[in-house]
Formats: sequence, structure tokens, C-alpha cells
Amino acid sequence: MNLLPISIVLFVFTAGEAKNLPKNSVCSDILDPALIAEIASYEKVKDEIVKFVTEGEFKGKVYDELAKFVDKFGARISGSETLERSIDYLVQLTRDENIKDVDIVTEEVKVPDWVRGEEKFTLLKPRVKNIDGLGLGSSVGTPPEGITAEVIVVSSFDEFSNISEHDVKGKIVLFDAKFEKYSVTNIYRTASASVAAEKGAVATLVRSVTPFSISSPHTGQQYYTENVVKIPTAAIAVEDADLLRRMYDRGEKIEVHIQMSATTNEDKISRNTLIDLKGTERPEKLVIVSGHVDSWDVGQGAMDDGGGVFISWAVPVILQRLNLRPKRTIRSIFWTAEEPGLIGAKAYEAKHRNESHNINFIMESDEGTFAPLGLVVTGTQEARCIIAEVLKLFESINASTLIESDSPSSDINVIVETGVPGAGLYNANDRYFWFHHTEGDMMNVEDPNELDLGAAMWTAAAYIIADISVDIPRA
Amino acid sequence: MNLLPISIVLFVFTAGEAKNLPKNSVCSDILDPALIAEIASYEKVKDEIVKFVTEGEFKGKVYDELAKFVDKFGARISGSETLERSIDYLVQLTRDENIKDVDIVTEEVKVPDWVRGEEKFTLLKPRVKNIDGLGLGSSVGTPPEGITAEVIVVSSFDEFSNISEHDVKGKIVLFDAKFEKYSVTNIYRTASASVAAEKGAVATLVRSVTPFSISSPHTGQQYYTENVVKIPTAAIAVEDADLLRRMYDRGEKIEVHIQMSATTNEDKISRNTLIDLKGTERPEKLVIVSGHVDSWDVGQGAMDDGGGVFISWAVPVILQRLNLRPKRTIRSIFWTAEEPGLIGAKAYEAKHRNESHNINFIMESDEGTFAPLGLVVTGTQEARCIIAEVLKLFESINASTLIESDSPSSDINVIVETGVPGAGLYNANDRYFWFHHTEGDMMNVEDPNELDLGAAMWTAAAYIIADISVDIPRA
Repeated sequence: MNLLPISIVLFVFTAGEAKNLPKNSVCSDILDPALIAEIASYEKVKDEIVKFVTEGEFKGKVYDELAKFVDKFGARISGSETLERSIDYLVQLTRDENIKDVDIVTEEVKVPDWVRGEEKFTLLKPRVKNIDGLGLGSSVGTPPEGITAEVIVVSSFDEFSNISEHDVKGKIVLFDAKFEKYSVTNIYRTASASVAAEKGAVATLVRSVTPFSISSPHTGQQYYTENVVKIPTAAIAVEDADLLRRMYDRGEKIEVHIQMSATTNEDKISRNTLIDLKGTERPEKLVIVSGHVDSWDVGQGAMDDGGGVFISWAVPVILQRLNLRPKRTIRSIFWTAEEPGLIGAKAYEAKHRNESHNINFIMESDEGTFAPLGLVVTGTQEARCIIAEVLKLFESINASTLIESDSPSSDINVIVETGVPGAGLYNANDRYFWFHHTEGDMMNVEDPNELDLGAAMWTAAAYIIADISVDIPRA
Repeated sequence: MNLLPISIVLFVFTAGEAKNLPKNSVCSDILDPALIAEIASYEKVKDEIVKFVTEGEFKGKVYDELAKFVDKFGARISGSETLERSIDYLVQLTRDENIKDVDIVTEEVKVPDWVRGEEKFTLLKPRVKNIDGLGLGSSVGTPPEGITAEVIVVSSFDEFSNISEHDVKGKIVLFDAKFEKYSVTNIYRTASASVAAEKGAVATLVRSVTPFSISSPHTGQQYYTENVVKIPTAAIAVEDADLLRRMYDRGEKIEVHIQMSATTNEDKISRNTLIDLKGTERPEKLVIVSGHVDSWDVGQGAMDDGGGVFISWAVPVILQRLNLRPKRTIRSIFWTAEEPGLIGAKAYEAKHRNESHNINFIMESDEGTFAPLGLVVTGTQEARCIIAEVLKLFESINASTLIESDSPSSDINVIVETGVPGAGLYNANDRYFWFHHTEGDMMNVEDPNELDLGAAMWTAAAYIIADISVDIPRA
């Protein structure tokens, strides 16, 4: 996951217990009672899917396939050979399922090829200490001998704006903004280098964007503004940022050595993967489920976003095994190059703009595949009411909460911005940012039973939305 | 903290609510009502100390001094110059307090000088991946070119005992024992190399001894048995151990490269530090409070055991500032070289054996300085009853729980084994092993208010035990 909605929780309402607008009472005014009854009639199909995935033949399958995949390829950064081989693998894995009436295609996308190379961050004064750090995506490297400079520590862009160029020039600036929430604090990761370069800083360090750490640095994309001098930039562990802050507050002179051999090569060709399970009655209409296949170059991208890819991969596979075919087509998309800036999703949106009226509903899971709780939904009130009715079916697995948000999930935000209704997976991801973009994004974060529940809910919700008599309305 | 009691919880009873033997009713039979009344009369003194430390002039002082100390010196491994300079600093810091009637002495101890040097652990097959690892204390290094070998994965010594020499010879053995509790699982860290070397293994890797990880390896001491071939041994992150286990279970051939330049030099001279606040009536009688000043060579030893040292340092300082003098002497000890095997404590015990009858009670904090909850106590039933009465005074700060254990805390176990009654700090250390012996043992683990409560409780308890009319009885 790269970008998060600015404000994820606008309204929350649980199917069983309306907490906010649109209230159930309002929904019952808006929706045709026959439609409500029609949606409720999917209870049996939903039960069949949930049972098959959580107790039947499919139990543990999502975890096992995800583990095989991330263990085999590990990290899959944009531009890497590994990412391309992992996409080939997913295509073959899907082919091997021999799903009837399935189209599998890949669509080429030009993607960035940033390579971290060797890195080392060392506190030299007031004492020598290794600093746990990770260069940020798209950062330039240092000269081969590295950069050694005095460090100034600032807590915010506001504070930085009051510091004179004279006090910044030639220095390394550490932005030690405390974690508030990802969507707020993340700006220090994405923008610090450009902000500091304007006053002549030679490099920036950023306190890792996380509420919890075991000296774990968190990487992620940063962006140089136009015409700015490109300076190296890296995230350092919360503990080291706080150490430097304390030293700075004591008036000690801080000197750090930064060595980064990061390079940006020519763009490479990668691919979005599209798997279409053809609809029986309105095959041109699409319900999309998705996740992104690329990851950062640390850990094994199990959580970000292997889990999202595999619960979306599971949708046509489960439906095939249960011999279920909805009226509309279900398209699973594995986006490429989400991390460097939603590159795959943007390419898809541009390429398919003329047919976007055919997207009935678009879903993505990119904030963890912990226990599913419901959906984060964007759309008209009527659209949200229909989804709320669908979510009522998941009360038995505690996944019936609807959260409203204009930006439900990273990649699909590119498409819902154009007026397409959609949803992200709402799940019990309280610890998501503990592991996000770290070496700790490994299979240990995933739980087989939670993945089963997520895949079951994802599959059943997509099936029902793709099968009901009405389209999801737009504004 | 190095060694933990085999079974820390034998009996628990809270002063307010007896949970187990000895029950309060039993204590009221055993203790003279006059003594119970006498102990209860310390309420005012206790209040004075708690108020001074948690709300008064001393508020935040323990955290600030601990931060200054660990920020200045960082990790303080046995045998290092840094450890010795940090001991000098503590002596001077105490001198600067100008405590009346205080004796500050250091006693020399020969300590191991193991130096980690450069390390690198790399998975080569089935794919290349960096492995997050840390060599274990006292391990030999590899040849300069490292060791490359096939890996076999075993879960327990039992399982290993069933594997033939033929299948082990020339291989690296990964022991991936799942964390049960530290005192149980720790044996894999301390003994794996010797066990595996007997069957011709060329190195061992051990799953880090922790219930939680963000790809964080945990170091710690290991011990070669006599006459065994010394092979290199390291702990690796839980995530990597589990990755290798999954690959192994799939039948994939695993090859790892280990490069460790660890060396063991001649023993060095270090020092235990003894600070005596002279008793007014029975100065030969000692109540000891303690922690160990050395740490591992990762993180900054804030939790293990900077916190224990500083709440023990605070005892004479607080009493001086409040002009309180108990009848018996309070001795603060900062043990050296705990981590490589309780070296400082063993030297102290040997040197002071003839006067050990004068130790009235011995206390250590070496399992975290989170919110204090009470004491882990060893001693006769009468002794425990007296301590339980003292703990009743700490109900107001929720620190009145008495836990019985034969091994209350690492260093002092050496002394309580000889029949001396003693106690460790019982505190809310649920996450202690998340950070234990990792780069994450930094000031971020510590909380100023919890340290204040700990120091207040530690000081008041030591004062009361050192001042009451009766000695703590022995068997």
C-alpha cells in the first residue's frame, strides 16, 4: 500500500446496527423492498462459499498459495526481473486451475526501475553508532565516498519554514515528525527531500512513518518536485530518530555519514494481469476485484500486497470449483507498480477509459488481509445502500461493517475518482503499519484462518454484486 | 537479563487479595501483630517518597539520567572500553550528588572480551535473500571466506537426536524451536552449537527467542561444552527461520552462507560498583538493591539493564534528598558482565562470602522497569510474610503483588542460592522479550512515569526493609 485516503472514516454503519448516515431506515426508504429481498436470498450461496473456504476443500489454500508465492519470489520491486517472473507465475498458476470461460491477459506498462544498492547510515558524533535506515524509493544516491555532514533536527515543515537558509545549507535535515496517522505523517516521507533541498540541505533523514518499532526502518516512495536539487533521502528507525532528537535538544553537535548507492535506470516494461470470469448474461459488465503484485524491496511483500492479490486470485478459482457463474463478468486484476505511484492503475485507467461505464463495481484489498470486518465504500447513497444490504449477509462472520470514504483503496482510487463506485477491504489491521514497508512484511504477519475468511467474504461479495438484477448506480 | 528462573511463578498472592500460600491469614498467625503494625506505620514515609519521585522535584529524573547515560555510551558489552567509561561515569554521577555518609567503591573482576565484528547471513538457495541474524555471544567466527553449506531444519533436541550423524555432517543446522517461554526456549540459544557439533555440523542457526518480531534478531550468550568442536552459531529472525522451515518442509534444498568475524580476546578487567549509604544503627547489615551495567552490543541497553541500574542508583540519591537514613546500610550494586554469564555477581559472591550473613535482603531489577507490580520473592515463609506486609503499603500504586520464586533475578540468583533472602522487581513486562537483546532495546521502551513509580517503590521498599526493627529471617 502506498497512498491512503486522507480521511478514511467519514461514516460508519454496521448492517445490524446503524451508526451513521445512511441509516438503515433511509436505505429501506431508498431501496425497492424486492431488491432487499433479492439480496437477502443470496444467504445460501454465501453460506456455501464461506463453508467451502473456511471448512471445506479450500481451507488453508489461500495461505498455502500465498506462502509458496512469496517464499519463491520474495520482494518484487517495480522494474525487477523478479516482479516479471512472479507475474508469469501467477498467470500460470491461474491457467493450471483450468477455469472454464476464463480469459487471462496481461497489459504492458512502463514502470520505474529504482535500485537501492548498498546503503549505510552511521552516527559519527557525538559517538559512533550504526543507524538503522532505508533509502526512500526514487532517491538519488550519494557520491561513492558518501556524505558526511552536521545534522539539524526539526519536527515539522512549519518549524522548518522558520529556519534560515544559512542554518540549513550544507547540513543533513532530520524530520522527526511523530506518527499521527499514516495519511497525515506520510507527507514527511514523500516531500522532505524537496522541501529541505530548497534551503540547501545536502540530504534528509525522516523518522519512519509507524506507530511501533523494534528498530525497524520503513521505506516507501518519495517524490522530487520539479527543478529541485535532488538530494539523497532515507527513513531511519523511530528509535534512532528519537536518539538524535534527544542529542540535539541537549545541544550536542551531531554528525552523520550517509552512504547510498541508489540508482534509477531506464523504465522497464511490466504488466497488469487481468483474469476475466465471463458473466453468463451481461459479460460486458465488470465487477473488479484486485490487489497489487509489486512490493517494496524489503521483506517478502506478504501483507503489502500479496494477501490482496491472493484473495482476488481466489475469487474465480473458488467460483469455478463451486461451479458458480454470475451474470456479470468478474475481473481479477493484479496491478503492477503500485508502490512507485499507482503506475499500473493509472495505465489501466487511461487504456480502458472508454469502457469505464462498464465497470459496475471495483474492489481492492491493499491494507492488509487480517480478519475481514466489512468494506470501505465509495458511491452514491443508493449504491452504498445496496452494498450495505450485501454486507448484512456477512453478519455471521462479523464482516458486515460499511465505512464510507471517497478513497477506498490505493490503486482503485485512480478509477473511483472518475465516478465509478467501489470498495476496499475493511479488516482488523490495527498493526498494519507496524510492518508496512519493512523487512517484517513476511508470512508471519498472515494468518490462514483470517485469509480464509477474507477470501470467502471477497468472493461471495463479488459474486453477489455481479449477479443481482440491478447495476450499482452512479451519480 | 541473561538467565531467567526455570519457573518464575510458584505462588502468587496480592496483599489485598490472597491468591495462594502463604495466605494472609497464615501470615497473621506467623507475624507478631506489633511487627505488622510497625510496618504499616511506614505509610507516611512511603507517601513522602512516592510523592517526591512521582510529583515532586525528582519527577522525570530517573528517565532523564537514564537517557543521558545510554545516549552517551550506547551498548556496553563486557570487555569493552565503553563499559569501563560508563562505570566511571556512574561513579562520578553518584559522587556529584554529594551524598553524606556514602562509600563508593569499585571491585575488579576479570570479564570476557568477545567482539562480534562483521557478520552476514545469506540465503543462497533456493533463492538469494539477506537473513537478519546476530551471532551469539562467545561464538567463534567463520573462516574469512565464510561457511557455505546445506541447511537442515529441526524443531527440537528430541527431533535432532533421531537424525543420523551422516545427515548432519558438513551441514548447518537450524533449530527453529517455537517460543514457549524464555526460560524454556532459551536452551536452544545457549546449547545448540554444542549439541549440533557432536554430530559434525559446521554451524548452527537458532530461531530468535521471542514471542514477537519485526524481522528482529535477538542475540545472547551461548556456551560450548567441554571438548566439543567450536562451531559458529547465530540467532536469526523468527521470520527467516519460519521461511527456511517452510522451504525445508516443501523439500527444497536450502543453502546458506555465513560470514562471522567474531573473536574472543584475553579477559579484561571490569568492575562491580558498590555504593553504600551507611546505616545509622546497624551499618554492618546490608539491604542490597542492584542492576547490571553491561549490556549486549546492540541497541543501547536501556531496558537490559539501564533501567535496573538507574532505579537502584536512585535509592541513595532520593533518600539523601529527603534526608532519610535507615538503620541498616543500603548498598546499591551495579553488576558488571552479567550477560556473558553473571561474571560480576559470581566474583562478588566469592569475594564477600565470609560476610554474606550480613546481607539482610538482596534485590535486583533485571526484567524491565515497566510499571511496578510488586516483588518476586525468595525466602522462608516468615520472610515472605514480612515482605508481603511491606508490599501492602504499595496498594495505592498497584504494586503490592508478591510472587514467590526460588530464582528472583539473574545476578542475585548467585547469592540467594546460598540462602540469602531476596527479591526481583515484578513489573508489567509483557513485551520485555519483544525487545530483549535486540537493536530495539532503546530509550523508546522506557516510560518516564513508569520509571518514577519503579524508583519510588524500589526506594521505599529498600528503606523500610533496611529500617524495621527485625532482620529478614533465614532458614
